[in-house]
Amino acid sequence: MGGNPVLSTMQDVPLLVSRILRHGSTIHGRSQVTTWTGEAEPHRRSFAEIGARSAQLAHALRDEFGVREGEPVGTLMWNNAEHLEAYFAIPCMGSVLHTLNLRLPPAQLAWVVNHAADRVIVANGSLLPLLAPLLPHLKTVEHVVVSGPGDLSLLDGCAPTVHAYEELIAGRPTQYDWPEVDERSAAAMCYTSGTTGDPKGVVYSHRSIYLHSLQINQAESMALTEADSTLPVVPMFHVNAWGIPHAVFMAGVGLLMPDRFLQPGPLAEMIATERPTHAAAVPTIWQGLLAELAANPRDISCLRSVTIGGSACPPSMMKDFEEKHSVRVVHAWGMTETSPLGTIAHPPAGLTDEEAWPYRLTQGRFPASVEARLVGPDGTFMPWDGRSAGELEVRGPWIAGAYFGGTGGEPLRPEDKFSEDGWLRTGDVGTISPDGYLTLTDRAKDVIKSGGEWISSVELENHLMAHPAVAEAAVVAVPDERWGERPLATVVLKEDATADYEDLRAFLGERLARWQLPERWAKISAVPKTSVGKFDKKVLRAQYAEGELDVTNLTS
Amino acid sequence: MGGNPVLSTMQDVPLLVSRILRHGSTIHGRSQVTTWTGEAEPHRRSFAEIGARSAQLAHALRDEFGVREGEPVGTLMWNNAEHLEAYFAIPCMGSVLHTLNLRLPPAQLAWVVNHAADRVIVANGSLLPLLAPLLPHLKTVEHVVVSGPGDLSLLDGCAPTVHAYEELIAGRPTQYDWPEVDERSAAAMCYTSGTTGDPKGVVYSHRSIYLHSLQINQAESMALTEADSTLPVVPMFHVNAWGIPHAVFMAGVGLLMPDRFLQPGPLAEMIATERPTHAAAVPTIWQGLLAELAANPRDISCLRSVTIGGSACPPSMMKDFEEKHSVRVVHAWGMTETSPLGTIAHPPAGLTDEEAWPYRLTQGRFPASVEARLVGPDGTFMPWDGRSAGELEVRGPWIAGAYFGGTGGEPLRPEDKFSEDGWLRTGDVGTISPDGYLTLTDRAKDVIKSGGEWISSVELENHLMAHPAVAEAAVVAVPDERWGERPLATVVLKEDATADYEDLRAFLGERLARWQLPERWAKISAVPKTSVGKFDKKVLRAQYAEGELDVTNLTS
Repeated sequence: MGGNPVLSTMQDVPLLVSRILRHGSTIHGRSQVTTWTGEAEPHRRSFAEIGARSAQLAHALRDEFGVREGEPVGTLMWNNAEHLEAYFAIPCMGSVLHTLNLRLPPAQLAWVVNHAADRVIVANGSLLPLLAPLLPHLKTVEHVVVSGPGDLSLLDGCAPTVHAYEELIAGRPTQYDWPEVDERSAAAMCYTSGTTGDPKGVVYSHRSIYLHSLQINQAESMALTEADSTLPVVPMFHVNAWGIPHAVFMAGVGLLMPDRFLQPGPLAEMIATERPTHAAAVPTIWQGLLAELAANPRDISCLRSVTIGGSACPPSMMKDFEEKHSVRVVHAWGMTETSPLGTIAHPPAGLTDEEAWPYRLTQGRFPASVEARLVGPDGTFMPWDGRSAGELEVRGPWIAGAYFGGTGGEPLRPEDKFSEDGWLRTGDVGTISPDGYLTLTDRAKDVIKSGGEWISSVELENHLMAHPAVAEAAVVAVPDERWGERPLATVVLKEDATADYEDLRAFLGERLARWQLPERWAKISAVPKTSVGKFDKKVLRAQYAEGELDVTNLTS
Repeated sequence: MGGNPVLSTMQDVPLLVSRILRHGSTIHGRSQVTTWTGEAEPHRRSFAEIGARSAQLAHALRDEFGVREGEPVGTLMWNNAEHLEAYFAIPCMGSVLHTLNLRLPPAQLAWVVNHAADRVIVANGSLLPLLAPLLPHLKTVEHVVVSGPGDLSLLDGCAPTVHAYEELIAGRPTQYDWPEVDERSAAAMCYTSGTTGDPKGVVYSHRSIYLHSLQINQAESMALTEADSTLPVVPMFHVNAWGIPHAVFMAGVGLLMPDRFLQPGPLAEMIATERPTHAAAVPTIWQGLLAELAANPRDISCLRSVTIGGSACPPSMMKDFEEKHSVRVVHAWGMTETSPLGTIAHPPAGLTDEEAWPYRLTQGRFPASVEARLVGPDGTFMPWDGRSAGELEVRGPWIAGAYFGGTGGEPLRPEDKFSEDGWLRTGDVGTISPDGYLTLTDRAKDVIKSGGEWISSVELENHLMAHPAVAEAAVVAVPDERWGERPLATVVLKEDATADYEDLRAFLGERLARWQLPERWAKISAVPKTSVGKFDKKVLRAQYAEGELDVTNLTS
């Protein structure tokens, strides 16, 4: 051996979104995108047509507006065929799809558009009532392209020029010579809806989207094939609709798009009539659907599997789905920073239903491309023993290593979000079993750091809320001279119910270790909540600090 | 927009074989590798043990033999757990797994070892009778590591030092700090068994193996999950056993290894007792298995799917599998240069069995990562219309763009194997349907180039062999003054059968266009064959050129 290393003889072909589009629109050209219209007939378009119209849109963006490679283009759209065209046209031409979250507070939405410096926004006509009042605050927007019906007069007198989507793309070439950009170049971006501070931009690369799509279609993930059709209720403006739009073009999977019809009635209707085999949404959507089906029964057994993420699904809901509707629920966990697939909860093979159940209630297992570690209270790595809790950190080719720093700005790597060696700090606290199943127990900011151990606020709350007298309970960390932090339990009693703190503490004592039990207790009339209905613990912490709560200390 | 392109914020994590190993040996640590021993009990080893022993092997290779990054290490082994350990240890430590094809003629095998300059060879004891006589011809080999039982005295007096595998790895650390090498660096190499000229080395990268594994586990490919176990009858020294060893570690799939027991009896026995859900092999293996099962019935319905590649599977064999054994056969096409997955023949969704059948007889459809084009007789690209034939060229991240040029040598890019723009010329001629199904009709070197059109020799042969009087027929191109080339039909008549050339030509005329019909005919006693039983057309062409055939020209 002369010491010369053997070199690979493989072709160097970049992993690009345009490969996914080309594949889907040719090999799977007959597969269909069906968009719900709220009328008798949904709208149908083949993958081949999506491919042709994506090329037309790209020509328009380049030739009419001078959109360049690396430039962001905003979309303010529901899940529909035209949004899918933008999803492909913009990254394939080398530009950056910037999906705008229409649920953000208007001021944050404006901040996001200004931060990304979007020059062009493609919007659904039905969203003009949201967009029009924002426009005076958008400093960089020059062109608005309107797709679908809407009241264009809302834009009268606005600075940007307004274009009708169909007129804009009509007659343009249906082929585009997609550039072979670097696979690590930006393809899409999405801002997190940070509850504190400004939203943070995550920028996906062609490579990350391509690899994530390959994972979504793994038999051990969503297992989508041409024989499936999938209903992504999760919006395309939220982490790429969990990667489904790209994944379906890779495998020719039929796509059922709900557009703006996200209410339980229309969802039940579109499932019963279009018969998708798979769907994906957050638990609250499914809660509404199950209630609707209880009131107005319809057959949804076409769904072989439903992927649930965003937050944990209550076991009762999973059982309802399976027992009443023959639909299997699969938990998945992820975040904007993880593209989002971080884990998926298929149980180990060979178990009985009963044995499998605890595994299915976890957040699930990591795929090969996602490495994980738990960082404990003292900063050391915790073992995967199913008991030792730590903050989850992840690493992988579709995991963020920074946030977008604005045009011309350096990427942001805040210390509380990224470790020194580049792993993402998820802000979630939990345990991992020896076979890699993740169970999240708390948010890192809510966990109580007591004398070098962590106490889960969520675990305390769940046990408290199981007490017959308790309507709601929220537990927060409060400063403690001796232990650093200790839990404060705030409880809302049910009407006419009575229970004293000793009772409640004893109730917890049957379920938890002694050192985990709160000493400080306060009765409140209601748990303060955020705009999306989550417990707002920073309000409770502030109330405690200001002495506004009537606190009893049981050890005093 | 200031003109600064938006940059991706994704982590830059390389796609490495060590990620696959780490994942499989932890998250799927309980999954098992079962190696057939020919005795009452097969040998079983968990993925966790494979991971630990791979680390031990890597330590031994580095510390005892000084194996370096980029250096090839040869393996001369059957499909078994130890070969799997070498499969992971060698690439994960940054070196290059060089699988030696034990079916090559000894002179070619020696040429291959010398060309790669292997210093270390890991060999099964059962293969020492093959290796020992080669050793004097191997110029670079310094160490032979012997795994499993074998007659070590065969190596007495050989120059290389000899080591027992188990002794070598015993007691070494079960963890190895796998280096984060470039994902485009070499991970494994495999020489083609070129029937003409020297074997050609294909060098796979970490990236190509990782992406190929993600594809194998797609629901639309082999769809392997932890609930499966797979039997790769296809050898690990042949195109990485079609990528199965890596793919199973990515998804925790059980692996059933046949070792040297590739005869129909043991294969039937291991399927019936170990009950794998999937298997992969070339048609001749299955032909033997079906005959064995006809003679000694066993239940093999545990197999949900059998992947067949290497050459086309006769429809009668596919029907036998399905009707007699409830096993679904799936065609796949590939070559050493394509890692090998090029196409896989799942029919389009929504067809009846009868409608699906013609699709299942094709070579199949290309996955998103494999681009394809057909180059016609005049060098232009042919349409995907299911009729226009051309030579298949492919491009993708797991497709070869060159051959290994020897240590210190430049990569080889022969013109007949790689296009100017870097695509692989497969040497296969066929058609592609509008929905991307490939049908191969001939080898490019055997097709008859007649007046700017191509005539398939295989198509002519198949039609001729359907004639009741014909036992065998081989068609080759011969020079023609007017048309460039024209077909010469050589036929072997069945015993006691008679048929004149006009009859045979008329028979073809009912099935083919007039311009495709041969004018030149010759009766022969047998079609000359290669050592592996394929028609040896270069002998026929030589016999024609030398005037050794008794040729009748029907148009004269």
